[in-house]
Parts: sequence; C-alpha cells; structure tokens
Amino acid sequence: MWQPRNPDFAARTRASFADQAVMATLGIAIADISPGLVALEMPFRADLVQQHGFLHAGVITTALDSACGYAAFSLMEEDAEVLTVEFKSSFLAPAEGRVFRFEGQVIRAGRTLMFTEGKTTNEEGTLISTLSATMMAVRKPL
Amino acid sequence: MWQPRNPDFAARTRASFADQAVMATLGIAIADISPGLVALEMPFRADLVQQHGFLHAGVITTALDSACGYAAFSLMEEDAEVLTVEFKSSFLAPAEGRVFRFEGQVIRAGRTLMFTEGKTTNEEGTLISTLSATMMAVRKPL
Amino acid sequence: MWQPRNPDFAARTRASFADQAVMATLGIAIADISPGLVALEMPFRADLVQQHGFLHAGVITTALDSACGYAAFSLMEEDAEVLTVEFKSSFLAPAEGRVFRFEGQVIRAGRTLMFTEGKTTNEEGTLISTLSATMMAVRKPL
Amino acid sequence: MWQPRNPDFAARTRASFADQAVMATLGIAIADISPGLVALEMPFRADLVQQHGFLHAGVITTALDSACGYAAFSLMEEDAEVLTVEFKSSFLAPAEGRVFRFEGQVIRAGRTLMFTEGKTTNEEGTLISTLSATMMAVRKPL
Repeated sequence: MWQPRNPDFAARTRASFADQAVMATLGIAIADISPGLVALEMPFRADLVQQHGFLHAGVITTALDSACGYAAFSLMEEDAEVLTVEFKSSFLAPAEGRVFRFEGQVIRAGRTLMFTEGKTTNEEGTLISTLSATMMAVRKPL
Repeated sequence: MWQPRNPDFAARTRASFADQAVMATLGIAIADISPGLVALEMPFRADLVQQHGFLHAGVITTALDSACGYAAFSLMEEDAEVLTVEFKSSFLAPAEGRVFRFEGQVIRAGRTLMFTEGKTTNEEGTLISTLSATMMAVRKPL
Repeated sequence: MWQPRNPDFAARTRASFADQAVMATLGIAIADISPGLVALEMPFRADLVQQHGFLHAGVITTALDSACGYAAFSLMEEDAEVLTVEFKSSFLAPAEGRVFRFEGQVIRAGRTLMFTEGKTTNEEGTLISTLSATMMAVRKPL
Repeated sequence: MWQPRNPDFAARTRASFADQAVMATLGIAIADISPGLVALEMPFRADLVQQHGFLHAGVITTALDSACGYAAFSLMEEDAEVLTVEFKSSFLAPAEGRVFRFEGQVIRAGRTLMFTEGKTTNEEGTLISTLSATMMAVRKPL
C-alpha cells in the first residue's frame, strides 16, 4: 500500500530495532517488515506479569509501540529518526497466551508526523489490545 | 484528599504490587503510598533503552500505569481487584536521567471506574511523560 | 458480526438518537444501523468551521462520538443507557468536503464496558479522523 | 510561566478565535488569555444536549479543544498557524450546570509540537472533563 522513501527500509529498520536493547531484554523479535507495516512477536514470560499472572499492560504496550514506531520508520527518509509523540492503548482482554503478536501499521504518512495503529493478539487470534500512536520524524539531533 | 474505603489500603497495595513480577524484573519500587496517590521509582538501566539510549517509552509507561493503577486500588474496597481499561501517554522529553519518579493520582473515584493521571520526572524534575488512565474495579473473577 | 441483546435495538437506537437535540442542531442524521455498527452523516456547514474554513475538530468528534456511542447502545440490554467514558481522536486530514460520514463500530462488547472505534470520511473517501472510545452501560440512574 | 514569542499574542489569538465561526454558533467566548493559557466560557444551551439533557460530550470537547489550541497558539511565532494533531478526553461527571468554563494550558512548548492539557468545570467548580491534546505549529499552507 505504501511506497517506501528509502529502498533500504528493511535493513535500516532491522538495524534500528537491534539498537533497542529493551527488545532483547523482553524477548521481543521482528516477525515481518513491509513498507508501513511491522509485526513483532514475543513469548509469554512469567517474570513480566502483573498481579493476576497475565503479561503487564505496559509490556504489551512496549512491544506495540515499537511495532508502530518501526512501521512509521519504514516509510521515512534515510536522514530521519523516529520518536513517539503520544499513544493511546485500550485493553480488551487479559494478555493470556503462550505467544503474542504485535502488528503496527501506518494510516497516514506526512513528512513530519505519521499516524499509526496497532493491535496485539495471542496465538488463538484473541484481540488483546489496540494502540493509536502519533510518530514524528526528527531530522536534527534532539 | 481521598478517603480510603479500606483501612488496610497501604498493606493491601504493597502486597498486590509485590505480585507484579514485572516490577522487580524492571527494577521499579514503591516510593510513597497515600489514599489515591502512589509514587514509584526506578533507576536508569542500559538494558531497557530504545535506539537513542533513553529509557523506552513503553518502560516508563509500564511504571506509570502501575502507579496510576495502584493509586486507584488504594481507594477500592477489599473485595475489588484493579484492571487498566485504557491509557493515553504523551512523551514530552526524552527519558534521560539517573533515576525516574512516577506519580499516579486519582482525579475521580467512582464505584466501578476510577479516572487517574500520572507523570514521570527525572532527578532534575524534568517532566518526561504524562498519563491519563481509566481504571476499573472488578469484583468477580475475570 | 454481533448479536443484539434486544430485538428492538434499531428502534431503540433511533429513539435515543432523536433525544440528542445537538444532532438536529448540527444537522447530523442516521445513515445506517446494524448490530454494533452505526453510521451518521452530515453536510458541510459554514457556521461550524474553525479558523481555516474546515469543520471544527470538535464538531466531527461530536458526530463520531455519537456514532460510536450508538454502535455500543445497539448491543445493550433494554434496561441500559450508554455513557461515554473517554475517547481519543486523531486528525489525519482537514475536514474538507461537502458531506461527511461517521462510522462507529464495537470491537469488544462486555457487559459493563464496550470498546469502539470510529472513522470520519468525506464524499471522496478521504480519511479525516479516527476515534477510539470506551462506552459504559449504566443500569441505574446517574 | 511561558514567554510569548510574539508580543501581539493576545490580539492575534482573539482574531483567530473570531474566525472560528463555530464558537459564535455554539455561544463560546473568550474569558482569559495569558501566554500559554486560554480560558473559554459558554452558558448551557438546551439545543446542544445529549439524550439525558446534559451538554453533549462533543460540545464540551469542541470548546476544550479550542481552549487548548489557542493556549498553544498564544506561544507561537507570527508566521505559524495551529492545528490539532490529536486529543484524548475523559468524562468524569455529566455536563450539568448553567455555565461552563474551559481552561487550556501548555505543558511543553516545542518549536513544532506543543503539548497541552485542559479541563472543563461548571459554576460550582465540579470537574466535568479533562483533555490531553497535541497541537502543531504549521508554517506553510496545508
């Protein structure tokens, strides 16, 4: 659907993802990359749960934010970095399951701002959370 | 400001927080508890960063969500559990610093729903993120 | 997709919509009702614009909130009323056009809370705004 | 607290507000302007209600969005226009009352993006809604 502005978008996205140390720490990996669409996956981990034994809402939001951020990044020029401006997440069902999938996609790609949407599902396809996030392309150092 | 509905609110809040395994995993601890107000703290950790070396937005949101969730929980009856319905977070400045403080407070306490607000600051008092979250009191098992 | 819990859902939804005086005031009308899905429409009005001559973000949000609220209401039991708990809206393109369509749908239907999503388009199909809203079924008077 | 970047900020804000035809249509007027802070007011109107006779959530959001947008605008350079990127609003109490006050303030003023927060109260000081909104300074025509 989207045209990448940089032919090396996939390699560039993988390289930036690899720099997010938190992804390895939490066991989150890339499942798919296409222009404007990134999917991540992570297995359940008992050391990442909230008080009822489900993955903490913040943990699934960490993964979903990165999925959406890299979906945006995959459409950016090579001189741009991506920052999360804000996100809203709704929690529809407990994060129960053995493996979780986080899909982020761009719904509007401006030059400075990109609007993205994401969803978390488990291995049975249950919809666990949704995310609506604004991403910013930053061309100068912060 | 708020009247607790359970005299053991502080002990009950600490016990539930201790059941959130992710808090220990990420190094997040309770700093303060009063009725309707919970503050958490965590030191910087290099294994929790995003691609620019700052704490990942999802990590600070994990802490801030728990701060707001337990602020709500501190006002609930003893037969209630707390669930996050949704939250929105804005990222005002990079999560730069040595130690971060996460304050959550209740702004409206209904019987079923509680509205909360939170903010993340670093040791210099820089405002890093804000959170607006809806929490739900659940009286039956999910 | 959804099963209504009340066979009279369509008549009941139309009756409640008719009680929202603001809908007639702003020229917003029902286009479609099915279980868990409501579409509204309104023509452009020069007296409802912001400073650049486009419909004000709040006006399209008023319509989209009602579309989502009635999508939720269409799935509720006959003793329930609907209230908006919170919503988040993103503004992807200026609200330019001659006629606007507002679609709201339920993505998770609990007994107390319903999660909904909505989108605004113009007559050319341009995506103008999205909404993510939490609706509550209220069974007692407020 | 904030330094205006344009000495004519108040006159410029009033002029842009006057161009928002929807404000006059809904009976919303400026109460206060200072750098980074704008308050609006409107009386109750029976033709702007939802199905229970309270002001519609969208109507109070229309006013609160403008309060936050002009709070941001009051800090912008004279070549900038303001656009709402997104907002999230929580509805804490029914919009009951005779006159409503909408306060918007800037909590972070970047060159391109401004983060704002708003709240709606009635004449008794009851907190009715909160808003968290991202505003954008646009220097070129859309």
